[in-house]
Amino acid sequence: MALGNIFNFFVPKDKKFFPLFEQAGSNLIEMAKVLNESVNTTDSQLRKTLAKKIEDLEHRGDDITHQIHLELGKNFITPFDREDIHSLASSLDDVADYIHGASNRMDLYKVENPTQAMKELAELLIEATEHVAKAVYELKDIKNVRNITDSCVRINSVENKADYIFEKAVAELFEFEKDAIILIKHKEILSSMETATDKCEDVSNVLESILVKNA
Amino acid sequence: MALGNIFNFFVPKDKKFFPLFEQAGSNLIEMAKVLNESVNTTDSQLRKTLAKKIEDLEHRGDDITHQIHLELGKNFITPFDREDIHSLASSLDDVADYIHGASNRMDLYKVENPTQAMKELAELLIEATEHVAKAVYELKDIKNVRNITDSCVRINSVENKADYIFEKAVAELFEFEKDAIILIKHKEILSSMETATDKCEDVSNVLESILVKNA
Amino acid sequence: MALGNIFNFFVPKDKKFFPLFEQAGSNLIEMAKVLNESVNTTDSQLRKTLAKKIEDLEHRGDDITHQIHLELGKNFITPFDREDIHSLASSLDDVADYIHGASNRMDLYKVENPTQAMKELAELLIEATEHVAKAVYELKDIKNVRNITDSCVRINSVENKADYIFEKAVAELFEFEKDAIILIKHKEILSSMETATDKCEDVSNVLESILVKNA
Repeated sequence: MALGNIFNFFVPKDKKFFPLFEQAGSNLIEMAKVLNESVNTTDSQLRKTLAKKIEDLEHRGDDITHQIHLELGKNFITPFDREDIHSLASSLDDVADYIHGASNRMDLYKVENPTQAMKELAELLIEATEHVAKAVYELKDIKNVRNITDSCVRINSVENKADYIFEKAVAELFEFEKDAIILIKHKEILSSMETATDKCEDVSNVLESILVKNA
Repeated sequence: MALGNIFNFFVPKDKKFFPLFEQAGSNLIEMAKVLNESVNTTDSQLRKTLAKKIEDLEHRGDDITHQIHLELGKNFITPFDREDIHSLASSLDDVADYIHGASNRMDLYKVENPTQAMKELAELLIEATEHVAKAVYELKDIKNVRNITDSCVRINSVENKADYIFEKAVAELFEFEKDAIILIKHKEILSSMETATDKCEDVSNVLESILVKNA
Repeated sequence: MALGNIFNFFVPKDKKFFPLFEQAGSNLIEMAKVLNESVNTTDSQLRKTLAKKIEDLEHRGDDITHQIHLELGKNFITPFDREDIHSLASSLDDVADYIHGASNRMDLYKVENPTQAMKELAELLIEATEHVAKAVYELKDIKNVRNITDSCVRINSVENKADYIFEKAVAELFEFEKDAIILIKHKEILSSMETATDKCEDVSNVLESILVKNA
């Protein structure tokens, strides 16, 4: 049998890890917002600039992940289990990778007119990353468990919506798009965006796992 | 070095978690059986009804997962590590998601004549979910370790077969299907079915991990 | 709060697990080398022979994984946490699966002329598996933490390169390949190769997680 570890919840005064996780969360919101700007323009020159901006933000995210690793190497005491800090950092990094991937594909595949479904998914990504950032922000105080759980529920609900929009959009491509190559191209871009919300759900899973472990 | 934890195996009298895991297992078998019915009819009206039934079962699965989370919140003592209960519940939920996804795609993409490979994969999914349900059922008694391991081996073997059928079916699509859009459509549906068996293998991995941790 | 476990690092004299992990690492390098040979020939008969060789090596990998599981069943004392040994073995197995998948698809889809991108990805896979093997080899001595971390950084950098080559190759397919079916076929093969490097990154994540847990 296993006992819940009552001594094991968050060091309230941690000044190393929580600020870094907060930065990672804000960075994701910013990436999602730039992606949203990008799917709402038909100016391909502007879209190139925005793609560059997302790439820079992705590198900033990599730096934050790297700093979390460095802190893990330097600190003997951590606010929760070391391997969970590592998992949380990796899962936040994955979200950044897929937002970057979606933006990169739009650029590389020379998409001129982002579709309605791309716009809807980009908006959902803002929502999802906002809940992710909020959950991660609340992680520093045990009294916020309810709030974190609420954010996780919301992330999962956004992911469900994104999945629905993705599947419907692909079905419409099959019904109306006669050019197979354009069909695949659009499907791939929609897929990176949908996977980015999946990765937000993975963050939510890591958070839930941290909560149940320390409940 | 790490010592295997001899004190840490299953509370035999747990009345909270095991019944819920058993329900989740049975629910998966039922989903796979309805999917199998669906690929074996050419009546598209019936297929719509069956898709609705699978959706309802998926919601029932979500409820079970939710109850497991509620029990984790209420119970200080758990039959095995809290985070492993969470992982097991999530992995069972993933299987349901992909069975639902396959059924949903068949409906959305208006597949009229499920192919031989779809029928074979649906049958393998029944087999895989039956082994999953069996393994989860046996989890409540330490004396069943051998049986659980056996089920895991069988799940992996079913997954190998499913992978082989999937790859062969896709190769045949490349060889004989001249309409690229139909090709992609079929490939996507086959892919959700094959991924559903992958997710059964993930359940098997979680179970093996629980076993080695508590061996 | 959680304390890093100073007592918990590697049993230096383990004679069971480390030799098996080393074999798994070497096996991956060999698989990557045969795949590289395969993308560099236009002799389809030779490619069939090499595909068979990769399949045999994949079975050898399965045997090694199986032996690691058997050792876990027999040994009460393990050089690091039992569940981490399980995760590491699984993640190495996944790399083998995707190398085998790439080779299998080239054979099944009757690719006659492997493209430049396939050749570049095959070379990166040799690099990635060499770093994986090196990291796993160094795992037996705590003094090698720096070296393991270095290898992990290199694996991640190879994965980034592979991702870049993959995305660029797919973009070029969209631009120049007018036959949608050939496009999908090539994209699928490139995708298995790129996913094999992703799986090397997963090994690196497992290794990092083991290091932070035992730091």
